[in-house]
Amino acid sequence: MRRIALVGVGVAVAAVAGVAVYMGSASGQSNGDAAPIYGIKYLEGYRDWRLISIKQLTGKQLTVAGGELKQLRAQLGNDLAIMALRDGTLPFPDGAMIAALHWNEVSSDADNQALAAGFPGLGLKSSFAGDAVNVQFMVKDSKKYAASGGWGFADFTNGKPGSEALHEKCFPCHQPAKDRDYVFTRYAPTP
Amino acid sequence: MRRIALVGVGVAVAAVAGVAVYMGSASGQSNGDAAPIYGIKYLEGYRDWRLISIKQLTGKQLTVAGGELKQLRAQLGNDLAIMALRDGTLPFPDGAMIAALHWNEVSSDADNQALAAGFPGLGLKSSFAGDAVNVQFMVKDSKKYAASGGWGFADFTNGKPGSEALHEKCFPCHQPAKDRDYVFTRYAPTP
Repeated sequence: MRRIALVGVGVAVAAVAGVAVYMGSASGQSNGDAAPIYGIKYLEGYRDWRLISIKQLTGKQLTVAGGELKQLRAQLGNDLAIMALRDGTLPFPDGAMIAALHWNEVSSDADNQALAAGFPGLGLKSSFAGDAVNVQFMVKDSKKYAASGGWGFADFTNGKPGSEALHEKCFPCHQPAKDRDYVFTRYAPTP
Repeated sequence: MRRIALVGVGVAVAAVAGVAVYMGSASGQSNGDAAPIYGIKYLEGYRDWRLISIKQLTGKQLTVAGGELKQLRAQLGNDLAIMALRDGTLPFPDGAMIAALHWNEVSSDADNQALAAGFPGLGLKSSFAGDAVNVQFMVKDSKKYAASGGWGFADFTNGKPGSEALHEKCFPCHQPAKDRDYVFTRYAPTP
């Protein structure tokens, strides 16, 4: 029976390991540089988190004088963040994490020609996520980040954290969303 | 030892069940009406799938004469679809499924005022996923759907399938993406 018992445990361990692989290293920070002020490293595995919502942002570039900015953005949440959003419970629990993925918005003539052929006369134009720009993280830890609403903030471009000046803007900017626990993004309904 | 063996198996079953719960009923179709032609029912649990990319679509409404259409759209994939996209392997394997979530694009004056305060002079404007419009599914089954590139298509609004006339357009419209196995959406890079 000892062998059967070990087989059982072996399957259990494999199955649990499978869960870990599926979830990615959701809480695992990389070995790279930490973002200033909040000490958050690039969160490996966040691309496996679930969808909260999506946005478009237009205006002028912050970093390129006079340059036009046109981005598509997606917000993903780890399990704790998604559960809180679906349940509508605030504040978010410690351990909740949100990632905001930002891309330059681009289009494809071939895609738009296909739309025009399929739906003539409607003038349909599609644009989509092109080059990656940056990713921003919010990490909830009500004790560690008590001075910033319980949230730590981080901004990474090509895996490298942004400046201290940039990170000083995070919490003040999020103040207007105080009644949503400083999270601007609303959970998008499921069609 | 018999008890230990059973405990082992019990843990294994629980762990496997845990995986199933986490993944949602990814392959589970609902009990509602099936989409015409392809016989696909509304896929419960697709909101737990992972992000492929996002899009904006603008033009005129198909259903409301003269009405303006402005949508934000997200494409999610089940495990098989995500793995194929990340590996860059085509065609997609049988069992791969893609969901396209469509929302009306809306904005919030309060959010834009917060952007103006945080980033003065850039004229930043944000818009986000508002009301749900519809969801479209692509389900790969190379035998069942051999006549349509191996894909079954389905379109649901409020959980109800669209008309046969609508579903007749799916495969012809996707023909221009034949070299990407009929999938227009490109996997967005990870910032």
